[in-house]
Amino acid sequence: MYMQKNRLETFTDGVFAIVITLLILDIHFPEDNYEHLIHAFIDTIPKMLAYASSFFVIGIYWVAHHQWFEKVAKVNRTFLWLNIVFLMFISFLPFPTSLLGLYPFEPLPIIVYGVNLMIVNLMGFIMLWYLHRTPELAVSSFSHTDFKRPIPIYITINSAYMVAIGCAHVAPIISYGIYFIVLTILIFGRGSYSACDRKSAPKQRH
Amino acid sequence: MYMQKNRLETFTDGVFAIVITLLILDIHFPEDNYEHLIHAFIDTIPKMLAYASSFFVIGIYWVAHHQWFEKVAKVNRTFLWLNIVFLMFISFLPFPTSLLGLYPFEPLPIIVYGVNLMIVNLMGFIMLWYLHRTPELAVSSFSHTDFKRPIPIYITINSAYMVAIGCAHVAPIISYGIYFIVLTILIFGRGSYSACDRKSAPKQRH
Amino acid sequence: MYMQKNRLETFTDGVFAIVITLLILDIHFPEDNYEHLIHAFIDTIPKMLAYASSFFVIGIYWVAHHQWFEKVAKVNRTFLWLNIVFLMFISFLPFPTSLLGLYPFEPLPIIVYGVNLMIVNLMGFIMLWYLHRTPELAVSSFSHTDFKRPIPIYITINSAYMVAIGCAHVAPIISYGIYFIVLTILIFGRGSYSACDRKSAPKQRH
Amino acid sequence: MYMQKNRLETFTDGVFAIVITLLILDIHFPEDNYEHLIHAFIDTIPKMLAYASSFFVIGIYWVAHHQWFEKVAKVNRTFLWLNIVFLMFISFLPFPTSLLGLYPFEPLPIIVYGVNLMIVNLMGFIMLWYLHRTPELAVSSFSHTDFKRPIPIYITINSAYMVAIGCAHVAPIISYGIYFIVLTILIFGRGSYSACDRKSAPKQRH
Repeated sequence: MYMQKNRLETFTDGVFAIVITLLILDIHFPEDNYEHLIHAFIDTIPKMLAYASSFFVIGIYWVAHHQWFEKVAKVNRTFLWLNIVFLMFISFLPFPTSLLGLYPFEPLPIIVYGVNLMIVNLMGFIMLWYLHRTPELAVSSFSHTDFKRPIPIYITINSAYMVAIGCAHVAPIISYGIYFIVLTILIFGRGSYSACDRKSAPKQRH
Repeated sequence: MYMQKNRLETFTDGVFAIVITLLILDIHFPEDNYEHLIHAFIDTIPKMLAYASSFFVIGIYWVAHHQWFEKVAKVNRTFLWLNIVFLMFISFLPFPTSLLGLYPFEPLPIIVYGVNLMIVNLMGFIMLWYLHRTPELAVSSFSHTDFKRPIPIYITINSAYMVAIGCAHVAPIISYGIYFIVLTILIFGRGSYSACDRKSAPKQRH
Repeated sequence: MYMQKNRLETFTDGVFAIVITLLILDIHFPEDNYEHLIHAFIDTIPKMLAYASSFFVIGIYWVAHHQWFEKVAKVNRTFLWLNIVFLMFISFLPFPTSLLGLYPFEPLPIIVYGVNLMIVNLMGFIMLWYLHRTPELAVSSFSHTDFKRPIPIYITINSAYMVAIGCAHVAPIISYGIYFIVLTILIFGRGSYSACDRKSAPKQRH
Repeated sequence: MYMQKNRLETFTDGVFAIVITLLILDIHFPEDNYEHLIHAFIDTIPKMLAYASSFFVIGIYWVAHHQWFEKVAKVNRTFLWLNIVFLMFISFLPFPTSLLGLYPFEPLPIIVYGVNLMIVNLMGFIMLWYLHRTPELAVSSFSHTDFKRPIPIYITINSAYMVAIGCAHVAPIISYGIYFIVLTILIFGRGSYSACDRKSAPKQRH
């Protein structure tokens, strides 16, 4: 069984658009503390930072998913389900985001957030690996190098996340620093997931 | 009145993408129990399992819907409304999912979940049957066999769900086992809804 | 300023798909009444009926919107904003739905629900009227008859809703009966919004 | 790295459609005050006004985004991320909307709402400015005038918002008046964002 690649893309884009927009639902005010409005507002600041952070995380993986899919020509049942599992962990992100906003200095939210990021990163790698193992799904330009080059990137990212998780009990500030650096590199870096970048503008698909 | 098949598909994909993403909204933390964070986290584990389970269920029916629609050439008013009723029960799934996460060992959630799955499965069959009865809506390759072959599958699935519902009061663990086996077969099985599989990759529609 | 019709359609379809799926969020369980699970479940029955009812209402207007848009060739700023106002009242429906599910036998929810339905119906008529007054936006086949024929339908529907609202204090059951009949006719009836039906299958736009 | 413009548009449209529909989730009723239903209903009126206001705001920026993108030929990584940051502040709007509905006569919500609007307006300008600075991303018809002409509009809008914010402590009614006038002009005005209007109907892209 094969499936149309573009319908899977549309579905995936839909899930990304929804999950990125749902994040805001976690930031709300108690209806009853009319007096200490400023305090209540200040209390939501960790939630706002968690909101911004996850907005960027989901943005990163939306962009990365597009780059990965430029190498995909068609989709079989296994790849389809790998993609659904990938989306399951993307859609899960609002939960650790909410935890982080509620208890920003506790180790548990930092750990859960990190584990979620690790699994998302791992699923991305598994999809790449499956594409490598099932060359009939890949575009003809997909080469062995396209598979091998980004491997150290995936390993580095998950190692960094693991260090961040390890620091959660001892020094949460280091964990946050690591998340911040990794995400910044993934947004700005040329050596990040964009290692599989295409050099030229893709032909406008319609 | 006829409607464009692809707009119904897009609408359907949208509903699937939204409902699969809304599932996460059910997993959240009480704002007040700062101290027993680990306990609160452990309490959410049934919710996480219910989340994962319904994510796969919705994924299964999204894939199945695609396969069914490969046999559809155009859509009339009746088929359109059958599809809307089908979506009504897909969109309903977050409710039994939430029940299951709250009271995993009570019979009621297991029953409600099972009834919902049965109706979804039944609606899928009714749509197939209507397509068979209204051949002007089907693609030319849709044959009597395409209708008859999957009938035992629909019957088997609903029978299994009925047994699971029957076990809810006596042995919930058996109900869970049945749900697990049915869903696993629907994901991996060659003999599942994929009985109506196309043998070759569909031409890329755009 | 003109806008592409198909992007407005896509946006509109997105809003419809989201609002129809959000309805389920209103059906949930209190976390604390473990013992009287059956009672809590029975208490949700009005919510489920309100859910089903609004699912059909939104389905009706999604179908109707499509039929209206078959007559539209292009979109200007005014028509665009009429459509946004139309969507504002479609997106509002979860609120009266929720009211209805909470207090099914009070007059207020029945009135608010009815007023919402009347405005949606009215907005549909205003869009049709504006299309009639601005013929450069309409397809060439859009005739004076296409405008005049459905007018009694819009008037009848809103009159029926007005009667239902009037009965809300005296006999809620009559209000429900009227809503039920109107919606049933809008789904099954040949003389409903489908008065502007095209007789033949539209060419597959892609 | 370049990305397809139309996928970014689709994603953006999705986010707009979702955030505009999520606004309704803020309007709900307490389950317990059965008796004073009318009072509870009257209490939701500020929420309804905030709902309508933000519905129009999001509508305005959705339309504006379309107009901006008519000048865009392709998208690079920087522009993509500018767009994601823009969406982050669009998706944030339900929070100040909710604040405004809860405490309509307090200065804080008026300020937060105004700051959010200012940032959205600013992000729109930054995207325009970046397009001007990176002409290879723009369509060939994008001229220096297309960049310079709307600058006073962006400045005027943000100045007005700043005055509204400044009045929040002294005279909230003036703040509301300013928001109302600015939004009305942005909807109806020929001199608003539509300064970059195309004079003729765009060719139907499919």
